[in-house]
Amino acid sequence: MWGGRFAEGPSAIMREINASIPFDKALWREDISGSLAHVAMLAKQGIVSEGDADAIIRGLNQIAEEYARDGVPENWDLEDIHMTVESRLTEIVGPAAGRLHTARSRNDQVATDFRMWVREATRRAIGGVDTVLAALVGRADEHAGSIMPGFTHLQTAQPVTLGHHLLAYFEMLMRDRSRFADALARMDECPLGSAALAGTGFDLDREMTAHALGFARPTRNSLDAVSDRDFALDYLMAASQCSLHLSRLAEEFIIWASQPFGFVKLPDTLSTGSSIMPQKRNPDAAELVRGHAGRVIGCATSLMITMKGLPLAYSKDMQDDKPPVFEAAGLLDLSLAAMAGMVADSGFDTARMRKAAEAGHATATDLADWLVRQADIPFREAHHITGAAVKLADQKGVALDGLTIADLKAIDERIDERVFDALSVDASVAARASYGGTAPVRVREQVEDARRRLEKI
Amino acid sequence: MWGGRFAEGPSAIMREINASIPFDKALWREDISGSLAHVAMLAKQGIVSEGDADAIIRGLNQIAEEYARDGVPENWDLEDIHMTVESRLTEIVGPAAGRLHTARSRNDQVATDFRMWVREATRRAIGGVDTVLAALVGRADEHAGSIMPGFTHLQTAQPVTLGHHLLAYFEMLMRDRSRFADALARMDECPLGSAALAGTGFDLDREMTAHALGFARPTRNSLDAVSDRDFALDYLMAASQCSLHLSRLAEEFIIWASQPFGFVKLPDTLSTGSSIMPQKRNPDAAELVRGHAGRVIGCATSLMITMKGLPLAYSKDMQDDKPPVFEAAGLLDLSLAAMAGMVADSGFDTARMRKAAEAGHATATDLADWLVRQADIPFREAHHITGAAVKLADQKGVALDGLTIADLKAIDERIDERVFDALSVDASVAARASYGGTAPVRVREQVEDARRRLEKI
Amino acid sequence: MWGGRFAEGPSAIMREINASIPFDKALWREDISGSLAHVAMLAKQGIVSEGDADAIIRGLNQIAEEYARDGVPENWDLEDIHMTVESRLTEIVGPAAGRLHTARSRNDQVATDFRMWVREATRRAIGGVDTVLAALVGRADEHAGSIMPGFTHLQTAQPVTLGHHLLAYFEMLMRDRSRFADALARMDECPLGSAALAGTGFDLDREMTAHALGFARPTRNSLDAVSDRDFALDYLMAASQCSLHLSRLAEEFIIWASQPFGFVKLPDTLSTGSSIMPQKRNPDAAELVRGHAGRVIGCATSLMITMKGLPLAYSKDMQDDKPPVFEAAGLLDLSLAAMAGMVADSGFDTARMRKAAEAGHATATDLADWLVRQADIPFREAHHITGAAVKLADQKGVALDGLTIADLKAIDERIDERVFDALSVDASVAARASYGGTAPVRVREQVEDARRRLEKI
Amino acid sequence: MWGGRFAEGPSAIMREINASIPFDKALWREDISGSLAHVAMLAKQGIVSEGDADAIIRGLNQIAEEYARDGVPENWDLEDIHMTVESRLTEIVGPAAGRLHTARSRNDQVATDFRMWVREATRRAIGGVDTVLAALVGRADEHAGSIMPGFTHLQTAQPVTLGHHLLAYFEMLMRDRSRFADALARMDECPLGSAALAGTGFDLDREMTAHALGFARPTRNSLDAVSDRDFALDYLMAASQCSLHLSRLAEEFIIWASQPFGFVKLPDTLSTGSSIMPQKRNPDAAELVRGHAGRVIGCATSLMITMKGLPLAYSKDMQDDKPPVFEAAGLLDLSLAAMAGMVADSGFDTARMRKAAEAGHATATDLADWLVRQADIPFREAHHITGAAVKLADQKGVALDGLTIADLKAIDERIDERVFDALSVDASVAARASYGGTAPVRVREQVEDARRRLEKI
Repeated sequence: MWGGRFAEGPSAIMREINASIPFDKALWREDISGSLAHVAMLAKQGIVSEGDADAIIRGLNQIAEEYARDGVPENWDLEDIHMTVESRLTEIVGPAAGRLHTARSRNDQVATDFRMWVREATRRAIGGVDTVLAALVGRADEHAGSIMPGFTHLQTAQPVTLGHHLLAYFEMLMRDRSRFADALARMDECPLGSAALAGTGFDLDREMTAHALGFARPTRNSLDAVSDRDFALDYLMAASQCSLHLSRLAEEFIIWASQPFGFVKLPDTLSTGSSIMPQKRNPDAAELVRGHAGRVIGCATSLMITMKGLPLAYSKDMQDDKPPVFEAAGLLDLSLAAMAGMVADSGFDTARMRKAAEAGHATATDLADWLVRQADIPFREAHHITGAAVKLADQKGVALDGLTIADLKAIDERIDERVFDALSVDASVAARASYGGTAPVRVREQVEDARRRLEKI
Repeated sequence: MWGGRFAEGPSAIMREINASIPFDKALWREDISGSLAHVAMLAKQGIVSEGDADAIIRGLNQIAEEYARDGVPENWDLEDIHMTVESRLTEIVGPAAGRLHTARSRNDQVATDFRMWVREATRRAIGGVDTVLAALVGRADEHAGSIMPGFTHLQTAQPVTLGHHLLAYFEMLMRDRSRFADALARMDECPLGSAALAGTGFDLDREMTAHALGFARPTRNSLDAVSDRDFALDYLMAASQCSLHLSRLAEEFIIWASQPFGFVKLPDTLSTGSSIMPQKRNPDAAELVRGHAGRVIGCATSLMITMKGLPLAYSKDMQDDKPPVFEAAGLLDLSLAAMAGMVADSGFDTARMRKAAEAGHATATDLADWLVRQADIPFREAHHITGAAVKLADQKGVALDGLTIADLKAIDERIDERVFDALSVDASVAARASYGGTAPVRVREQVEDARRRLEKI
Repeated sequence: MWGGRFAEGPSAIMREINASIPFDKALWREDISGSLAHVAMLAKQGIVSEGDADAIIRGLNQIAEEYARDGVPENWDLEDIHMTVESRLTEIVGPAAGRLHTARSRNDQVATDFRMWVREATRRAIGGVDTVLAALVGRADEHAGSIMPGFTHLQTAQPVTLGHHLLAYFEMLMRDRSRFADALARMDECPLGSAALAGTGFDLDREMTAHALGFARPTRNSLDAVSDRDFALDYLMAASQCSLHLSRLAEEFIIWASQPFGFVKLPDTLSTGSSIMPQKRNPDAAELVRGHAGRVIGCATSLMITMKGLPLAYSKDMQDDKPPVFEAAGLLDLSLAAMAGMVADSGFDTARMRKAAEAGHATATDLADWLVRQADIPFREAHHITGAAVKLADQKGVALDGLTIADLKAIDERIDERVFDALSVDASVAARASYGGTAPVRVREQVEDARRRLEKI
Repeated sequence: MWGGRFAEGPSAIMREINASIPFDKALWREDISGSLAHVAMLAKQGIVSEGDADAIIRGLNQIAEEYARDGVPENWDLEDIHMTVESRLTEIVGPAAGRLHTARSRNDQVATDFRMWVREATRRAIGGVDTVLAALVGRADEHAGSIMPGFTHLQTAQPVTLGHHLLAYFEMLMRDRSRFADALARMDECPLGSAALAGTGFDLDREMTAHALGFARPTRNSLDAVSDRDFALDYLMAASQCSLHLSRLAEEFIIWASQPFGFVKLPDTLSTGSSIMPQKRNPDAAELVRGHAGRVIGCATSLMITMKGLPLAYSKDMQDDKPPVFEAAGLLDLSLAAMAGMVADSGFDTARMRKAAEAGHATATDLADWLVRQADIPFREAHHITGAAVKLADQKGVALDGLTIADLKAIDERIDERVFDALSVDASVAARASYGGTAPVRVREQVEDARRRLEKI
């Protein structure tokens, strides 16, 4: 009945489908830390003897050294990292090893290990975000006055400054940072001591293990503690949104690096060349960041689907919680690092950006605003007058500020020479000085503000 | 070339694909509020005259009355709610209406309207969660001592109390609540005044409009303000996780209501009967709650995909932000209401639950723990002794506490009569008094704690 | 409707969560067709009298006229379209109406209705795809020789022809077509007569109803028939892939329409202008098509999640099958129509495309290939020689074919004057005449082939 | 590898984000096969000399031996499997190796390799499905007459036979099989020879390589060939639906294995026990199958998102195509094998199933149908009479067939003694003999039909 690698039948299938050691060996540090905290507490509470505890602690430390040096052995018959560690401990310290598992279960053990791993991944994500934030602020400062076209619908709409554009991503990533921070706060409870599902009859000090493992407090409900994976979903959802933001920035770099745009020269280190076209730089890293967003969202989707409709408490489906988180974390870490490098090291062709901003009559709204402000014309009417001017400029093949005052007066008598002060791209960006606007003076304030915010975190 | 309803060609296609009024009319209250705040600010800043402002305000109030009374007219040529309102305003107040749109754009307008709508949906979700929380605490209090089987792998594992089980959901929903609260805090910035993408040259008071519309502050970056939909994603992600929790509880109600389980009698109002089998109650509401989780997650996935890789600033793809949010909010509101009712009004057959807990040797771990504690036997050895006892009980067709002391001593000499104190389901749950455990005394403490937490929110 | 023990009546929550009439009224035609086929069969089999059958048929036809004229009344107490029709039928024909539901159940009824709806949507999708295919072939024919840059990584890589590029989408959409056709073949079985879940004791002629409703055969297993929604998933998955293809084409139109590219002038009817910048055309329709892909995929995800882990047979979760399908079908129909229009009516600026193809040394691989073919230099070495030539051209600010023969010989002695025949973009595309290649002669063959394939379908 | 301007060398981030060798080494067999076919064709066409071709072929065969024996070396600087093989080939055969890459590119090479891998995975999936189909038919034959409760809403609805229930899954998996077969047919075109994106100027025989690699024909459009990943999506979507079906069956096994149901005793080999509760079998394999559905769907979602909106031709995002396919294939293979074993080897407690079917008045519809048929009472009225009988039986604490004829006549005069022939569960299932119905006679016909269908495939 069974062909191929399952020739020996269901037991081979079961060994393979059941074993989590191929991936959960990534938890070995957390597993050993958790056991060290647990046995110290058991000893303090008099549940295991000092002698047994000491032996166990020595054994665990020895295992940690072994794994750090040689890697974790992958024996599928031992199923998971917990049994792998315990089995080795028994070899080292003998029957006393059997006391380590007193008053705990694999259910609370894996919940604790995995939560610590996710906590570390979350902190690492915050660190990665901070690197991008710093790069954005630095380049925004440098380019607070560099003019580029602002796009809507990828159509040139109004001139903006590159610094302003980069700070938009600063805002996005600050929100990502706060999402990771919220996730950290929410996962700051230790499941250890919840046992299989119902708590235990041993007189534990769960505050002690929680604090030893760096948690603010123990979880409040043992059934929830062993069947909850919210902390992993919180991470995946923050990672998804962060990846989305990075994918948008990546898309912009890709478009900007295309020959017709030519806004950016990507760093050598983060693009690939071709032996045949040495002048060319393929934005591989940006494309991979954009692609990774798909996979990170796929990981979040995966875990949501897996958790849907699971009755309490632990179900084996929950073993499928780790691969998507491990995968997403690897992709996010790389994406953040790559985008930090891309922001920090790209060369912006500001002359070309400025030239693009000057095409397309991007200051048309400035003319309309001037009509409202200087000639008290209602907004909608001002728009129609402007439209006529743009049309004329287009016909004459000039920019808006290439029209003569006679041209403009022919369109509307109320226009006078002061209008020319409003029609250059420099005037346009300088004018947009409302709070949050693109005026260089505002951008510089925003840079200062951003630096203050970064200092406070 | 075009058949069917597009017989008149591309203009018919464009009208239909472009029009958002069929769904964004749901934003009419927010749109009018936003305009009222904007015009009051324009007047204060001297950008429009008091007279024009008064006319506009009267007009907007009249429109609000009309819409509340008659609904919003759906004219596809007016595309969206913003043009629909402005067009009506022009009918009412004449050309002065044209001044309302000074220093704003549809881009910041829709960002503000939608954010206000999502803010309200988020608050509503918190209210809905609170109703479920209150129901859970009430029933947990009532059933702090009701014994039921605790399951792992849907297999009877250890006895727990129904109160403890219900409080596991209390913990989940408290985390949901905090996610919605985090989302509220993060979205507490007002985009109005960001204009099309770059800010504006008019001298706005954005603090004034932000506060008038109930926001803590204006957004800091205009490009971000018009191209950000994080607030909607934050809502959808919190909604997804909340739906997942509700789907788990729904699954349990469905299983519990099956004839072989018979743990619960669903409320008449939230189940459907059949004229042909009057004794039967189909758990329709629970099934719909479980099903809705799929759709809510689908909505979150949808918006994530839509936003992926969009360059700044506004792109029309973002018009697809509203349908998934509107849909998810409707489903979540109903799901929360239904589950609140299900928790509050279901009848639990505690006798049947207890009987199920007594089957399956669910106190086996209590025997093992007794051996560790009373006879100082290492945990793993205690497990093997217990296994032998369970096997014997199974062969004799009795529960564990139906074995004689002779039976037990034959298995291991170290067992004595005190063991029987540990083997009943009552003794088992009473013993699990570690923090977070299922012991009735702990559950009652948790109920008190839960009540205090609810009072503080 | 429930009566008896449900005397207190369904609560408002239940009425709202339970009612599917707000959306399943879209099935009214299918519901009435299904009932007409059912009652004709019941009469033929002698299960209902001819007189009753005639009355029922007259009544159903009257209802069809009413709904076509006045729409379907939406009374939530009647829950769904099936009860709505039956209730009206009872008003019209009296108690005989009660015989219509003999030997069927809402479970097989809705499975049949919905399957017919999806079948029609699938046929409509094929029709929509065909419109795009025809447009693509027409434009490919016109532009079989129009040169544009071929991109990898959105970097100019090699010259291609626009016709070739458009035919790439022809291939994608032909695959989409085959997916819809496969789905049609797989759904070609009629569930009617499966009753609630187990079949029925009445002597039905299921072949008769199946054929009357246009199905090839009845379903083989009644449990599967009422709990299967594969047909809806097949549609959604084909729709997802089709939307993905359209999103790629939409992205290209958006990029091509940007000012720096300027490859395409979108049709007035499928873009939006701005009163203030009359020269500007926002690619709204293309952006909406791109955005819709997100929602269509979200719909597919939604139904997959809903169906996951549902035990047999019918569960109420399955009521959530329709909204995602209805939504996706609306979005797909519009997307296909919009893209057909965009392809058919856009103006391509072939001069600008050609100029872009001439920049960037896009014929570098032609030089390398020439070296391999004419000078028998291994591929990898030829690449390095070419790299040196490109570098020199870049330094001199000329195109590759602007280098002198002396320049080239200085790089490698083996190059001779014949090389210039290979270095123009025209020579480049003409040379790529391998099967499937971009040479105009090949593209014209492909156009002919495409026309033959379209004729055969 | 880059040389020249990339003198500083790829940074560590770039090396890591860019390297696909950690996962695409899985393609080594396909990569070598593809190269063997390519070089044979180049030789036949006179593009490379026989001598060079022979050397290359010998070299490739040697590499295949090395990899089969020692695994594929993972050197990140060589990026991917293609460069890894080519680099080793150069070591073995010297500069002639440089001729292998003539008239191809990594773009068509990876498209071909991956397509062959997916083709093999698809065939493997069909094989796995066939194993489950065979198991289902075998057990259905055995249990064609075994009575169990048929559920709707997980409520006992009508008696069915276990054989009928299992054959419902036969239908689902036959549809899955046809989806994989459709995918195979659609992917049966060979991209090799499409080169980077535009085809090539060398005189290739693409039919020859296509047939050598087992494809029906070469792809028709080179741009499509290198940028298409439909074949991978087709696999993932068929895999998703198949996983959904398996998740439903897994859910049923999990519920059936719970103590209150007790319908099934899972095979020892596919469940896990507990040292402490030897009688217990946790349905781990079933839970993992159910969980895996989430991950498989997540993989499909991931690739859809990655492909959305990618302009032609190759973009590096597409490197993210492989991990989700590799992951899903591993999970699906295991899930199919596990479910085949579960179906084949589980023990069904038919006595307990029958008893459950007899509870809950599951033959109520049989009474109603009897009233319609024997007493010519309209369906809806028959339902109300039945409701009264069920209510009375419930009050008296008996099954429906435990009521006396006097009881029944008191409810409705038209009932006579023949009714008792209809009220047993045996009579009920025997009566449902409509095509597709649950009657044992029908199930046995379906088993025969299923066997014939399996023989034909």
